[in-house]
Amino acid sequence: MTETAMPTVEELDARESWELLEQQEYGRIAVVRHGQPEIYPVNYLALQGRIRFHTAPGAKLFGVLLDGHVAFEIDGVDGGTAWSVLVKGTAEEVQLSPDRGYPGPLPDVPWMPERRTAVVDITPIEVTGRRFRRSV
Amino acid sequence: MTETAMPTVEELDARESWELLEQQEYGRIAVVRHGQPEIYPVNYLALQGRIRFHTAPGAKLFGVLLDGHVAFEIDGVDGGTAWSVLVKGTAEEVQLSPDRGYPGPLPDVPWMPERRTAVVDITPIEVTGRRFRRSV
Repeated sequence: MTETAMPTVEELDARESWELLEQQEYGRIAVVRHGQPEIYPVNYLALQGRIRFHTAPGAKLFGVLLDGHVAFEIDGVDGGTAWSVLVKGTAEEVQLSPDRGYPGPLPDVPWMPERRTAVVDITPIEVTGRRFRRSV
Repeated sequence: MTETAMPTVEELDARESWELLEQQEYGRIAVVRHGQPEIYPVNYLALQGRIRFHTAPGAKLFGVLLDGHVAFEIDGVDGGTAWSVLVKGTAEEVQLSPDRGYPGPLPDVPWMPERRTAVVDITPIEVTGRRFRRSV
């Protein structure tokens, strides 16, 4: 007896979700601005349980990032499966150390034209991931 | 005299942004739930100036979609450039016609395991796009 292959969805555990976060470098951050959602693509670096990215200090994003909760998402397709990881958390600006360096590594910013940036870390409150297998 | 090649950013006009929306089929929708941002990846179809996608009627997403504004984002990398398109708008459920069909085409849902879905259209209020050229 054969069954029709249905798409399935599988929850990823925290370890798998973090492995995906550490492998990627491009995601999207969502914030609430004037009560409405906004999405911004960002280059990021996952390190020591945080999500680090750059933003221009004068940008709209920066002004609302630090006011409340943020969501961060990555996704991808591998052959017959698609996956996504969602991070919910709070954001804070990373302060320069007394020697004018940042603590820890910084993400590459190959697409960002602004030279002067602020560095922001997201501290996760919740990390969830899902893997979808395509119907055949 | 040579200059260091800097990354640059270029605004896309509405036509270019819609061309990209029509070429893709996978994006992310952001909503505000209990005052906090959430992001969901979705398969979609851009048609006649709207963004159409499926969602399960019982899903958390559906409950908040119709309450207010939504943001929708697609992005991609083409060799030395990256681009993103952001749509802000309002969402409404597409109603079945009297013959139990939906008006117009529906997106493919290769990853969605739920058989019963609702169909939602985003009516854009604002569509913006950017193209980033990588620094060399």
